[in-house]
Amino acid sequence: MLIVQKYGGTSVGTLERIDAVAERVIKTKKEGNKVVVIVSAMSGVTNRLIEYANFFTNEPLGREMDLLLSAGERVTSSLLAIALSAKGYPAIAFSGRQAGMITDHFHTKARISAINPENINKALQDDKIVVVAGFQGVDENGDVTTLGRGGSDLSAVAIAGAINADVCEIYTDVDGVYTTDPRIEPKAKKLDQVSYDEMLELASLGAKVLQNRSVELAKKLNVNLITRSSFNDHEGTLITGEEKMEDAIISGIALDRNQARITVRKVVDRPGVAAEIFSALAKEEINVDMIIQNVGRDGTTNLGFTVPENELHKAYEIIQKVNPNSGEVIESDNEIVKVSIVGVGMKSHSGVASLAFQTLADEGINIQMISTSEIKISMIINEKYGELAVRALHKAYNLDK
Amino acid sequence: MLIVQKYGGTSVGTLERIDAVAERVIKTKKEGNKVVVIVSAMSGVTNRLIEYANFFTNEPLGREMDLLLSAGERVTSSLLAIALSAKGYPAIAFSGRQAGMITDHFHTKARISAINPENINKALQDDKIVVVAGFQGVDENGDVTTLGRGGSDLSAVAIAGAINADVCEIYTDVDGVYTTDPRIEPKAKKLDQVSYDEMLELASLGAKVLQNRSVELAKKLNVNLITRSSFNDHEGTLITGEEKMEDAIISGIALDRNQARITVRKVVDRPGVAAEIFSALAKEEINVDMIIQNVGRDGTTNLGFTVPENELHKAYEIIQKVNPNSGEVIESDNEIVKVSIVGVGMKSHSGVASLAFQTLADEGINIQMISTSEIKISMIINEKYGELAVRALHKAYNLDK
Repeated sequence: MLIVQKYGGTSVGTLERIDAVAERVIKTKKEGNKVVVIVSAMSGVTNRLIEYANFFTNEPLGREMDLLLSAGERVTSSLLAIALSAKGYPAIAFSGRQAGMITDHFHTKARISAINPENINKALQDDKIVVVAGFQGVDENGDVTTLGRGGSDLSAVAIAGAINADVCEIYTDVDGVYTTDPRIEPKAKKLDQVSYDEMLELASLGAKVLQNRSVELAKKLNVNLITRSSFNDHEGTLITGEEKMEDAIISGIALDRNQARITVRKVVDRPGVAAEIFSALAKEEINVDMIIQNVGRDGTTNLGFTVPENELHKAYEIIQKVNPNSGEVIESDNEIVKVSIVGVGMKSHSGVASLAFQTLADEGINIQMISTSEIKISMIINEKYGELAVRALHKAYNLDK
Repeated sequence: MLIVQKYGGTSVGTLERIDAVAERVIKTKKEGNKVVVIVSAMSGVTNRLIEYANFFTNEPLGREMDLLLSAGERVTSSLLAIALSAKGYPAIAFSGRQAGMITDHFHTKARISAINPENINKALQDDKIVVVAGFQGVDENGDVTTLGRGGSDLSAVAIAGAINADVCEIYTDVDGVYTTDPRIEPKAKKLDQVSYDEMLELASLGAKVLQNRSVELAKKLNVNLITRSSFNDHEGTLITGEEKMEDAIISGIALDRNQARITVRKVVDRPGVAAEIFSALAKEEINVDMIIQNVGRDGTTNLGFTVPENELHKAYEIIQKVNPNSGEVIESDNEIVKVSIVGVGMKSHSGVASLAFQTLADEGINIQMISTSEIKISMIINEKYGELAVRALHKAYNLDK
C-alpha cells in the first residue's frame, strides 16, 4: 500500500515524541508499505513565532510572516528524516516547495492550486521514506506561503490525492471521531467509520478532530482519511465516501458553544430586504449560520440568525447601519448553544427529527430555532441546557450501545 | 551609497536586539543610502538545532541538516523585515534561494558558485530595504545548502560583490581589529585600517573578528569591509586593498595557542622524503603550518613542523605509519604557542625581524622555530611565555602609542 501519514504538533512536540513517530513510520514501512509523512511544527513553535512577530507589530507583513512560520515545519521534517535514516531507513525531507506544493498568493491563508509530486514519486521509487514539511507551499513568484490553521492536514490530503495514496492517516492526540464529546458524555463511543458528509457536519459543529477544509478536499479527491492517535495503537476512525450499514441511523451528537443569535423584528416584508442584510454581513466576512424568517403580521416579519459568538458585536453594528426599517427592534443573545444530530441514515428513516424534539421536550428544554439538512438536525437552545441535551439525545438514539 | 550590513548572532540575539538593529538600519537608510542587510540566526539557535539532530545521531544527513539549519536565519530575516516595515520603512526578506545564492552541493560546507542578484536589485529599485538570510543557499538541484561556520559573513561579502556595494559592514560584538588581544595587552589599540593581506594573517593567527574565507573573498571581489560593533557607534576597522601610510610598519601582534609541534629526527636526506610525509598528512586533511628542515649530518636530517593542537594525535599516528626510515625518532610537543608580527610595512623596512628576535632574547625567551613571509614573522615559543612575548613585542613596535 501507499500510505500518507500526518503527525500534528503534539505528536512531534518533543525529540522523544519525534523518535516515537519515527518508530511508528518504520513499523508501517516494515509492513511492506511505501510511506509519505507530513509533519506539523513542534507544538508551541508556531505560536512562539507569531509572538515574536507581534513584538514588533500586530499587523506583520504577510509575505514575511509566511517565511517566518514555514521555519517550524522545516525543522520537524528535517529532524524526522534524520531520525529515520539514523535508524537505518533511508529518508528524505522536502520543504513545501520541494514537495511541489503550489498555492495562490494569499499569504497566511493560501489555497492549494496544484501539486507537482515529481520529487515525491522519484524518492518513493528510490525506496525512500519521504518526509514533507506541512502547512507550507510556494506561489507562482516563488514566495513561501502558508495554508492557515489546520494547514498540515490539507497538505497531507492534497499530497495523498496527488500520488493516489491508498489511505491518508491523520495522527493527533485523540483516538478518532466520537459519537459525542466524551467530556460531556462518558459513554460516548468511537466511530469506526463516518462518511465525508457526516464528518463535515460534525467538524463544523464543533468536533475538533479535523477541519472542514481538509474533509472537503478529501471528499473532492476521494482520499480515504483515517484519524487516529499517535500515542497508542487503537484503530482510528475511517472517513470515506462509502456509507455505513443501514442499521446505524445517527453517527453523533455535536455541541457548538460558539454561537450567538441576532433577531431583527418588524422587518418590512418585501423582496430584497433579507439580501440587503446578509450581503452586508458577507461583505465583512461574517459567517451567518442558521437563518429563520417567520411570516409576520401587518406587513413585517421577524428575521433570526446565528453568527459565531466572537463576531456578534461586529454583526450587530453592521445590522444597525443597514437599517432596512427604522422602526425595527434588534436583539442579540449570546447565551445560546447549537445541538446537532448527524447521520446519513436519517435520509431514509422517518421519525428521526420528532424523536429529537420529543427528547428535548421531555427534559423541559425549549427549542429556539431549528434547521435541518439531509443528514443533520440542528437546534438552538439556551446554553445552560447544552450538556443535558447532548446526554439525553445520545441516549435517545442509542449511541451508547 | 549602496551599503551591505551584516549582523551576527549576538547582534540579533533577542527581539530587543533585533529592534536595535532595525533602528541602526533605518539610520543608514535615512542618510540617503540603499541598504541590504544580511543576518545570522539568533545566537544559540544554530547550536540548539545541531543538538536536536545529535539527539538522533552524531552523523545526521547533510542534506537534511542544511534544511534544518537554514530555518534559523529565515526566522531572523523575516522578523527584521517585519520590524522595519512596522517602523514605516518598507522591507522585504529573502531566503538564500530568493537572494540568488547558488552554491555547490557539499552540504554543511558548501562553497558559493554564483550570485544571481536579480531579486535584490529589483527590490532596491523599489526603494525597499532588503533583508537576506545569511549562511544559506541552494545547489543546482534546488536543495538547500549552508556555508559552514562564518557563512553569514561570506553571504554578505558575496552579495556586496555581486551588487557592487560601496562597503560591506560586518557587525559583531567587538569594535574592530586590534593591534593585539586586549585581554592580553590592555594598551592594545583599535586599527583604523588594515589591508586584506594583513587581515588574512591576523585572522589565521587567532584574531576572531573575521574568518579567512570572508577576507579572501573580499579581496578577490575587491569589496571594502568594515568590521564594527552593533552595540555602540564607534568607528570600526576598514579592511581594504589600499595600503596604509608608510609610517606604520607593523599592524598587530597575534598569539595562536592552538599549535603543536612534531619533530622527526634522523630522516634519510634524499629527495621525496618530505613529500612522502606531507602528502600523507594532506590526504587526511591535516593542516600543516610551519615547516623547518635542518641540514643534518651523516646523511640524515631533522624535520620539524606544526599542526593544530587537536590534530596532533592523528598527525603523530600518520607519521608513524609512513615511517620513511625505521630508525627515526619522533617527538611531539603541544606546550608551544605561535607569536606573530604582522604588517605590510615590513616589506620595505629592514631590521623588523631582528627587533623581534632581540625583544624576545631580552625577555629570556627561547625561539624554537621561525617562519617569515613578506608581511609576517611567526615564532614558535614555549606556551608559558606567550603572553609575555605579546606584551613585549607590542611595546617594542610602539603599537601602544
